[in-house]
Amino acid sequence: MSNLVQEKIDAYKKLLQKIIAYEEAINLMDWDLKTVAPKHSIEARSETIGVLSSEVFKISTSKEMEELLTFLLSSDKDYNLEPIVRRSLEEQKKEFDRYKRIPADKHQEFVVLTTKANNIWEEAKDAADFKLFQPYLQQVVQMLQEFTELWGYKEHPYDALLEMYEPGMTVKQLDIIFQGLKEALIPLVQEVAEKKAIIGDFLRLDYDLSKQKELNEFLVDQMGYDFQAGRLDPTVHPFQTTINRGDKRITTKYVHNDLTVSLFSTLHEAGHAIYEQSMDSQLDEWLLAEGASMGIHESQSLFWENIVGRSSEYWDYYYQKLISYFPEQLKTVTKDEFYRAINAMKASFIRIEADELTYHFHIILRYELEKELIAGNIQVKDLPKAWNDKMKEYLGVVPENDAQGVLQDMHWSDGSLGYFPSYSLGYLYAAQFTHQMGKELPEWKEQIKKGNLISIKEWYNEKIHRHGRCKTTNELVKEVTGEELNPDYLTAYLKEKINQLYQ
Amino acid sequence: MSNLVQEKIDAYKKLLQKIIAYEEAINLMDWDLKTVAPKHSIEARSETIGVLSSEVFKISTSKEMEELLTFLLSSDKDYNLEPIVRRSLEEQKKEFDRYKRIPADKHQEFVVLTTKANNIWEEAKDAADFKLFQPYLQQVVQMLQEFTELWGYKEHPYDALLEMYEPGMTVKQLDIIFQGLKEALIPLVQEVAEKKAIIGDFLRLDYDLSKQKELNEFLVDQMGYDFQAGRLDPTVHPFQTTINRGDKRITTKYVHNDLTVSLFSTLHEAGHAIYEQSMDSQLDEWLLAEGASMGIHESQSLFWENIVGRSSEYWDYYYQKLISYFPEQLKTVTKDEFYRAINAMKASFIRIEADELTYHFHIILRYELEKELIAGNIQVKDLPKAWNDKMKEYLGVVPENDAQGVLQDMHWSDGSLGYFPSYSLGYLYAAQFTHQMGKELPEWKEQIKKGNLISIKEWYNEKIHRHGRCKTTNELVKEVTGEELNPDYLTAYLKEKINQLYQ
Repeated sequence: MSNLVQEKIDAYKKLLQKIIAYEEAINLMDWDLKTVAPKHSIEARSETIGVLSSEVFKISTSKEMEELLTFLLSSDKDYNLEPIVRRSLEEQKKEFDRYKRIPADKHQEFVVLTTKANNIWEEAKDAADFKLFQPYLQQVVQMLQEFTELWGYKEHPYDALLEMYEPGMTVKQLDIIFQGLKEALIPLVQEVAEKKAIIGDFLRLDYDLSKQKELNEFLVDQMGYDFQAGRLDPTVHPFQTTINRGDKRITTKYVHNDLTVSLFSTLHEAGHAIYEQSMDSQLDEWLLAEGASMGIHESQSLFWENIVGRSSEYWDYYYQKLISYFPEQLKTVTKDEFYRAINAMKASFIRIEADELTYHFHIILRYELEKELIAGNIQVKDLPKAWNDKMKEYLGVVPENDAQGVLQDMHWSDGSLGYFPSYSLGYLYAAQFTHQMGKELPEWKEQIKKGNLISIKEWYNEKIHRHGRCKTTNELVKEVTGEELNPDYLTAYLKEKINQLYQ
Repeated sequence: MSNLVQEKIDAYKKLLQKIIAYEEAINLMDWDLKTVAPKHSIEARSETIGVLSSEVFKISTSKEMEELLTFLLSSDKDYNLEPIVRRSLEEQKKEFDRYKRIPADKHQEFVVLTTKANNIWEEAKDAADFKLFQPYLQQVVQMLQEFTELWGYKEHPYDALLEMYEPGMTVKQLDIIFQGLKEALIPLVQEVAEKKAIIGDFLRLDYDLSKQKELNEFLVDQMGYDFQAGRLDPTVHPFQTTINRGDKRITTKYVHNDLTVSLFSTLHEAGHAIYEQSMDSQLDEWLLAEGASMGIHESQSLFWENIVGRSSEYWDYYYQKLISYFPEQLKTVTKDEFYRAINAMKASFIRIEADELTYHFHIILRYELEKELIAGNIQVKDLPKAWNDKMKEYLGVVPENDAQGVLQDMHWSDGSLGYFPSYSLGYLYAAQFTHQMGKELPEWKEQIKKGNLISIKEWYNEKIHRHGRCKTTNELVKEVTGEELNPDYLTAYLKEKINQLYQ
């Protein structure tokens, strides 16, 4: 490699080093705001995060970055770049293009709009009045429509949005996937609806918060989450965040009269964190220590939350531990009653409270509406009705008001249309990966029964985690499971679970 | 004001806004490291703080900053700048000059040297072996000698170091102040040495940490510290830090078998924080919401820690509260026994454990050695002996080894020679301000007896805090007390206290 090329690579690494530093600062400031910052810290903090974010934007779109990317990725030369360097440059080039194709003032306008839209959405939700939010959502949709044209897409403008969260995924593929899912799951929803509802009132007793804290720390430690490279703190809306290469924090929410809120939030966020904690250390400096896609990241959190955390085998081992924390509340409850209660399936209005089965209809509904909004086939003003119609069709329930319906999620207010499909894709990936794990590690359920979660973790470390975003979603799925994404594994998993629960 | 001038001011403010943003990020990352960050976060965090600090350095010394300062402070024009703008420009100009007079590579070399020196100092202290540290300290002293020549000074090279911490203070003035203090305090030390020692073993019983936490939160709340604009967290070496204009955090150290460590650390750091919380809000954007000097800042912490927190009147009110937290430990202890125990005076080796009287000899000793080191009148290799000789002379005790002597403080390893005098100056300012408060608020001790600390806080808010660094130390002292710094007030305060304690 010539000296000039090495110099360019060094200069590129130096730019990344700055981006990494600013992002550490931003992520810590954000974590602090959401966990421990005092009230009067908020105003200045938001300004500061804005200043640092715009520095990241400046570096990512700088003349220097452009020249380095152009030089090092020039198609007619072969510099013998290491694969990791090339991959980093390609990812950075994608981001450069995405930013650069939007005029700077449009970008700024969108930030201002979504900040405002987010505030108004909160008001509208509190008032259960979609009309308040409607004009802002109209502008958000309109700007995103413009952006998709500027970004470009092969077939459907919505593809350009999917690209941000699920690179390579298209409307064409999603339509097939979700159609198949609908056809497979609707009969299951009907089947469950005819069964006797599961009662789990004991989950709503008073559960001491400090005991919950101890329990949650114990459980994530059991998963192999490294507390020397992270923390677990309470917050309002649980999240996982990466502060730096040695610091992947998780948060949870402790609620007095609901044991499950902290329990499953913690397992979920710890799933994300274990992914982040297990990436190859050489990826960090190349900005490649990130999830392959939102869907893949979600597959890791959902695996731990549901496939492990809501399995009968997991509680075979951990139920006795749980009782030791809450002997009073659970003294008359069997492990099986507990297992059924945390898995009860029932159509409901709110996505984030939905069970593993009905959840997908919340996503499919949103996907269908978003896609048509962006294509201009449905108008913002018609959303509430369209929403309720689909709820009725898919789940047989109709929200009593817009707060329980079309206004329930934040995503549209902050412009992240295109994100929702990643949630369902996460379930699909998780089921498919786990099926493969079952072939390679046939004793995995027996291991869980013994409270040995480490061999499972290590399987995922080896197959998925260590690669960060060095492999695409498609590459991962194919290399790990030997086939393309296949929704049948989720269907099979859900069928088996329903059998266990409602037999 | 012309448009051009307004434009320049706006451009200047924009630079400050960036500095403020980076400093918020740096301070939060530092706070996090010292309170909650997991172990593996440290390595990358240190690099990140380095990246952001060098950005602050770049902005502060940029061509743009230079041009703006030169234009706006040009001596032959009068732009009718608001006083706050002029003051900000002048302070920024000082920092610009200070940075710019050191060549960039020298600056970098000093950072690397002091980082290494600091590590070696820790080793040397653990091994109680000055020889290990000696070559590094030699280099630190040598570089500081070079710097003082580059910065310039009127009479003594040490003046250039004092300027960083105590602007306007000189060796000439300090020699007089400290000589007077020595003459006044040596007889007091002798007087106390002849009295019967005060025993306070009950302070070393087992004090539950969570009770201590409750107590400390209660006490700082009583002082008027605003928990909506700050937090109190445990750490190893207590400190106060300003995160942003609405967030001034304090830390303390909880020790099982020593009630006083957390108690007086907390009062001390809360004193700093109340200063920071009470500055005029318009100072923030001009980078003037800082202490007038280290000594003035220290006067506020020492006022609360000692003049209030170790007063008989304070415990007239709060001792009953204290007992309510620790009834077992204090059941046979009278308020007077407690008051005497927390004020016991006794010559000892360690500065940070020294009482209000003997403390000053620790400072005078360091000042005298630093001054002669920088002037080249004493060699680094001769420090251990010079240290012990002075300890013997001033306090009549000789450390058993270098860890208890010349190696005890971190300050020399990180290059902050010139800082120590600010500690004693803080006591002097505090005594002088408080004497003035006694004239303007004659009932202040009665107020303390009733647990009303707010009128005291408000007196300091009005006289000192709100000005930030808009006034110099000399201006503050003169405007508030009507005279120059006068060490007699401290001497009088100490005499009265000794009378109370040892009569």
